[in-house]
Amino acid sequence: MRIVIIGGVAAGMSAATRLRRLQEDAEIIVVERGEHVSVANCGLPYHLGGVIENRSALLLQTPESLAARFRIDVRVRTEALAIHTAERAVELRLPDGTVESLGYDELVLTPGAAPIRPPIPGIEHALTLRDVTDLDRLIGAAEATEEAVVIGAGFIGVEVAENLVARGIAVHLVEAAGHVIAPLDPEMAEPVHARLRSHGVDLRLHSRVVGIDSDGVTLDSGERLPGALVLAAIGVRPESRLAAEAGLEVTASGAIAVGGHWATTDPHIHAAGDAVAKIDAISGDDVLVPLANTANRDGRLLADVISGRPGAARPTLGSAIVGAFGLQIAVTGWSETRLRAAGRPVRVIHTHPVNHAGYYPGATGMRLKLLVDPDTDLILGAQAVAEQGADKRIDVIATAMAGGLTASRLADLELCYAPQFGSAKDPVNFLGWADRNIADGLVETLQWHELDQAMADGARLVDVRTPAEHEAAAIPGSVLIPLDELRERLDDLPEGDLIVHCAAGLRSYIAARILTQHGRRAWSLDGGFATWADGRATAQ
Amino acid sequence: MRIVIIGGVAAGMSAATRLRRLQEDAEIIVVERGEHVSVANCGLPYHLGGVIENRSALLLQTPESLAARFRIDVRVRTEALAIHTAERAVELRLPDGTVESLGYDELVLTPGAAPIRPPIPGIEHALTLRDVTDLDRLIGAAEATEEAVVIGAGFIGVEVAENLVARGIAVHLVEAAGHVIAPLDPEMAEPVHARLRSHGVDLRLHSRVVGIDSDGVTLDSGERLPGALVLAAIGVRPESRLAAEAGLEVTASGAIAVGGHWATTDPHIHAAGDAVAKIDAISGDDVLVPLANTANRDGRLLADVISGRPGAARPTLGSAIVGAFGLQIAVTGWSETRLRAAGRPVRVIHTHPVNHAGYYPGATGMRLKLLVDPDTDLILGAQAVAEQGADKRIDVIATAMAGGLTASRLADLELCYAPQFGSAKDPVNFLGWADRNIADGLVETLQWHELDQAMADGARLVDVRTPAEHEAAAIPGSVLIPLDELRERLDDLPEGDLIVHCAAGLRSYIAARILTQHGRRAWSLDGGFATWADGRATAQ
Repeated sequence: MRIVIIGGVAAGMSAATRLRRLQEDAEIIVVERGEHVSVANCGLPYHLGGVIENRSALLLQTPESLAARFRIDVRVRTEALAIHTAERAVELRLPDGTVESLGYDELVLTPGAAPIRPPIPGIEHALTLRDVTDLDRLIGAAEATEEAVVIGAGFIGVEVAENLVARGIAVHLVEAAGHVIAPLDPEMAEPVHARLRSHGVDLRLHSRVVGIDSDGVTLDSGERLPGALVLAAIGVRPESRLAAEAGLEVTASGAIAVGGHWATTDPHIHAAGDAVAKIDAISGDDVLVPLANTANRDGRLLADVISGRPGAARPTLGSAIVGAFGLQIAVTGWSETRLRAAGRPVRVIHTHPVNHAGYYPGATGMRLKLLVDPDTDLILGAQAVAEQGADKRIDVIATAMAGGLTASRLADLELCYAPQFGSAKDPVNFLGWADRNIADGLVETLQWHELDQAMADGARLVDVRTPAEHEAAAIPGSVLIPLDELRERLDDLPEGDLIVHCAAGLRSYIAARILTQHGRRAWSLDGGFATWADGRATAQ
Repeated sequence: MRIVIIGGVAAGMSAATRLRRLQEDAEIIVVERGEHVSVANCGLPYHLGGVIENRSALLLQTPESLAARFRIDVRVRTEALAIHTAERAVELRLPDGTVESLGYDELVLTPGAAPIRPPIPGIEHALTLRDVTDLDRLIGAAEATEEAVVIGAGFIGVEVAENLVARGIAVHLVEAAGHVIAPLDPEMAEPVHARLRSHGVDLRLHSRVVGIDSDGVTLDSGERLPGALVLAAIGVRPESRLAAEAGLEVTASGAIAVGGHWATTDPHIHAAGDAVAKIDAISGDDVLVPLANTANRDGRLLADVISGRPGAARPTLGSAIVGAFGLQIAVTGWSETRLRAAGRPVRVIHTHPVNHAGYYPGATGMRLKLLVDPDTDLILGAQAVAEQGADKRIDVIATAMAGGLTASRLADLELCYAPQFGSAKDPVNFLGWADRNIADGLVETLQWHELDQAMADGARLVDVRTPAEHEAAAIPGSVLIPLDELRERLDDLPEGDLIVHCAAGLRSYIAARILTQHGRRAWSLDGGFATWADGRATAQ
């Protein structure tokens, strides 16, 4: 039995090594176009910035080490040119340029996804970052310039921007959308904008690059941004050309079409990783989720299937995290933006907790957001932006989603508590309580983007913070009645529907409870002044 | 409606404030024996050590702040002497010593748990640490001595030991059991022992204090440990005397007996927090889990129930964490020791991963342990000892347990990955793969404590590490055949049953796969040399 694997990074190498552990007798050949296999691609930006000092640290395995331990025949600098499905053979171009045919019993396609190069005039001047060869080019360019333009403020764009700054390079970061990190909602992205700018990044939102040359780029506004280094980081597309040319089905999004067991439309060809579509956990639709963790996991499961063992694709949440100058940005599931665009009803909760007990030194603020299906109380997504602890909270929520726990059940989770690690009432528990209060009808909340309309419709806004907080910054049109005076000043309240707000949404919840029990209709502004201010800043 | 709450810390204050939010019109009176309510008790040890500089930071609320915001009538330095259930009244001793009766419609008992003072001669010389008053005494004693004895190496004992060391005090830490932190298994506790000793703590395991005087303690060995400060930290017992004297049912473990809705045997008396028994998530039995997170949560739910809302006790896992000189020790569910003592079958997995991608600077080692029901694959418990990331992994596993996920499903969890935060194959995912491999019969493992017997029964031990590793330290009786030479040296293997081991259990798993596919019976030593060495050290 000969198994040929095309593509030797995450999914491919996971498949190859698992196949060996399951099939000691199989012949396993890995064909890799690049110079290296088993590369730590997620570390590439950090070698650029010098955080990872040694380039060799990124090369997790070599063909020699894989041969010694796993008897895997790794062929680097070898490109698959064509698949002849009838003959069960792949046509390969060897490092010396000669072409040869390699037969297979089973073929595994794990070619990954390639950076998108948009059809901008001068795009040939732009670099991309996918592998070590790209990295070497990028470092070469960085050594020769003091100014750079990064096109696209997604995960890779933000990481590269940070690492260029770490090298002392002035960075223009250009993003067509109104905020960075697409899976975030705009108000959650605002702290990231502030962090990027405070570290000197020239962030250009709502901006498109319309031309690139050797000295910089031109924006759609006509403005010119100088930079001898231009990186295009606007996303990736599945490498499905080889599969398509072999007659395998390709999805509308350009991915290799596979079923729940990584089977292509040819019974002897299988595919996994960034080149294939996954099943979205929220919608059940095909989705592109080019992430290392799912690629590794699925490559391994594909090996199980080829070896006759059970193994089926799980719907994917797309949990992801990125660091930006010390800020942690983590997400799982869908955003509010995406849910509303899809016409899905959604219950939204913003909180602003601290990462561990506030009385223990070093506690830092977090911004959390939870998206909930109001009909089922199932969790649809979550976002965290924090100095510390974003990863832990999103991992816990992603696990709750995998276990089918409702949002209310987050209140019951028993999370480890000591004052330096969390809070007796953890931020995740608080999300559960907040959800349950809304679900039970104990409080009605209003989102930051609904405030203007509500006030236009006649609702009056009451600020229940302290006078000092109100004086420092207030929402236009708000009336100040501090929470601790509210019961005595019920007669001072405006007539009609009320919206109450505080700094983060906790005091306004208490105020709303008092008011509704005194017969008033009152909404609590979700996330308080902080979320409103964040949202306003990105909406402008 | 008057609701009287006896005990104003975690469960009591959570109940009181939730009651106010649900019942604006109720009269809510909190009776607290001590001088303060809403104290951050979990922070007490850290004020002793100066980590939390200001004592006032531990006082989260005052009677005044609770009156202003929640209209709660807080009565400190007021002790409940008796409950007269027929009259629905509690007898109180006021701060001035007078006694008065206070009627109630509903009574909530949240008196907590008191430190156990064992019947050791001279126990009156020992301090305990429960509240701010105790803390002040402890600080006074610490200011007057350079040497201290802490009796009991549980969570509190370890925290106090660390904080006494931070004050420059020489600490003797005396533990009757063979290892510290009872919910850990012995081999998992060994790194904690090493950490305590490396910071100068004189750790005395298998030692009992038989006498205490003003200058130190005497051990059962006859040895004397000097120390003008002696702290008893051997555990707590529920404060159920008041309830028992009022004729309420008390469990065999001394807790106030409550059903799933915190109802005592009197229809108008409810109880929650450390004074009541909880439902163990693994056994379904009554269990004492004196933890702040469950106390807060249950106090809040009790308020719901009293207010006519749904609310029911969840089985408790007892997730907990403690820091020890930078080491994080986190647990959830049951230990192997406890499971085996209860006669429960258990599948045990030890791993030694790093907390994030090894190629990213600052990665540190972790020790993880997973306990699984071999019949159902449900998770029974987990332990983590690590420099970083123990809290995150145990929180994720506790959430998986709450969601009813099997251990194998840990492999599928989508956890946030970037190289500074985790690994593409997270340590939690690895636990799932390891579990699935065992469950599927792909590998058989042997525990460190089973090795001697297996070798006595004739199995031969093969070390598949490198020659350098073997020379540095080897398990007696092992034969060295490095993994990468194994396929070529199958003829060099001893006859009969084989046990293979490496440093941590990964290479030995690969070796076992190779050997079994070549027709040999082979067990992989779970956790490798590291776990074996840890276990051996504590077993001696």
